[in-house]
Amino acid sequence: MHLLTNDMSSSFIPTIGLVLGPLKFDTLLDSVKWDEKGLAVAIAQNVDTGAILMQGFINREALATTISSKKATFYSRSRTTLWTKGETSMNFINVYDIFLDCDRDSIIYLGKPDGPTCHTGSETCYYTSVLNFLNQSQAEENNLAMTTLYSLESRVTQRKEELLVPQNGKPSWTRRLLLDDKLLCSKIRYLDFILEILKISVHGCVKVEEVLQVLRLRFSQSGVEEKKSRKAQG
Amino acid sequence: MHLLTNDMSSSFIPTIGLVLGPLKFDTLLDSVKWDEKGLAVAIAQNVDTGAILMQGFINREALATTISSKKATFYSRSRTTLWTKGETSMNFINVYDIFLDCDRDSIIYLGKPDGPTCHTGSETCYYTSVLNFLNQSQAEENNLAMTTLYSLESRVTQRKEELLVPQNGKPSWTRRLLLDDKLLCSKIRYLDFILEILKISVHGCVKVEEVLQVLRLRFSQSGVEEKKSRKAQG
Ligand SMILES: [Zn+2]
Ligand SMILES: [Zn+2]
Ligand SMILES: [Zn+2]
Ligand SMILES: [Zn+2]
Ligand SMILES: [Zn+2]
Ligand SMILES: [Zn+2]
Ligand SMILES: [Zn+2]
Ligand SMILES: [Zn+2]
Ligand SMILES: [Zn+2]
Repeated sequence: MHLLTNDMSSSFIPTIGLVLGPLKFDTLLDSVKWDEKGLAVAIAQNVDTGAILMQGFINREALATTISSKKATFYSRSRTTLWTKGETSMNFINVYDIFLDCDRDSIIYLGKPDGPTCHTGSETCYYTSVLNFLNQSQAEENNLAMTTLYSLESRVTQRKEELLVPQNGKPSWTRRLLLDDKLLCSKIRYLDFILEILKISVHGCVKVEEVLQVLRLRFSQSGVEEKKSRKAQG
Repeated sequence: MHLLTNDMSSSFIPTIGLVLGPLKFDTLLDSVKWDEKGLAVAIAQNVDTGAILMQGFINREALATTISSKKATFYSRSRTTLWTKGETSMNFINVYDIFLDCDRDSIIYLGKPDGPTCHTGSETCYYTSVLNFLNQSQAEENNLAMTTLYSLESRVTQRKEELLVPQNGKPSWTRRLLLDDKLLCSKIRYLDFILEILKISVHGCVKVEEVLQVLRLRFSQSGVEEKKSRKAQG
């Protein structure tokens, strides 16, 4: 089921790409603190999820191109050319807004990707966890950097998939019961919790960040408890 | 009201800082594609909200220090020294995990900030919107880069604050009514929508990202409609 009935062309900030006074445009480009090679850091971030998609470099021309084309454009230091993310894969990053940092040597392209950003097919380029590498005996890649809400979503999805796999050819009575959405939900403790917490947040008493922090702490505790109880059961 | 009763020390990933084999540690540091100056890009991201807090550079020592201390540490190119974010302000960024990108020249410090990250007191360093600058006659700063959920939260909070300000000395009957949480909620259309949509998402039918995209589109449409109706009335 997909809810995406609206057309993406009705953009969040509909003014990007308007005809701008060339003076103001130049003032902006001049205000960036370009380094000795004429570059600054550019970070592409998913406007909906906050996921950091990729990081590249920009020069003056790359930034000007992004502002006018609305497609995230970078400068390749190895190939010494401009390149628009998606020019080969067609997975463009559609830029809604651009932010400069306090000392103006770093920018964020806040946008919506058309598809996976990484040339490997991964949703983002950041799929190698340093801690995972250091703590595991086997190198396990495909460990996407995820913030609390998406980490939760991923756990819930994984749990649901586990429940859907028949273990001895056909699903057991328990499994069939669990496939029922209502029962499934009652089994997955996080769900009611997230809804309650989001209700409180939406009523304006707490900030979404606080809600997510509580979720993260509960979540990691229940993870630890779960592991403990599994070990106890042997 | 604060929900934060849990101790932050019960961390998400409790294994960081463990005694690690020096060999594995070296293998990891060697695997980073340090540039000709021995540097790589480091991006600090809020683990709960996904907000990009700041961007700096790291050398081998800065990364090693972050892994062992759990505090986001960078290399200052201007001062040519290591520095730990928070060493002056005490607003440390407590690192839960670190991610390498596909070509290993860029990393994410995924962590929880103790307070505002920017030396200006701003929550993040990215508070200057390029589009805002190009489209407005007056330069307006303090325009934090915000993803859909936080943009929504900020609008709701702002609307609530507007309603709380008495216009002629004392709140009108309408205003007093609006201060009632239930009525306020019925006035702010987004709220029921977000709850419904989150329920659907939680039930596993759609991804959180899709939910947020729909929210963003509805949200921007209702913003446009609101402006139109204001102009029509004005
Ligand atoms: Zn900077
Ligand atoms: Zn990549
Ligand atoms: Zn790549
Ligand atoms: Zn349910
Ligand atoms: Zn309340
Ligand atoms: Zn890279
Ligand atoms: Zn700053
Ligand atoms: Zn600063
Ligand atoms: Zn309500």
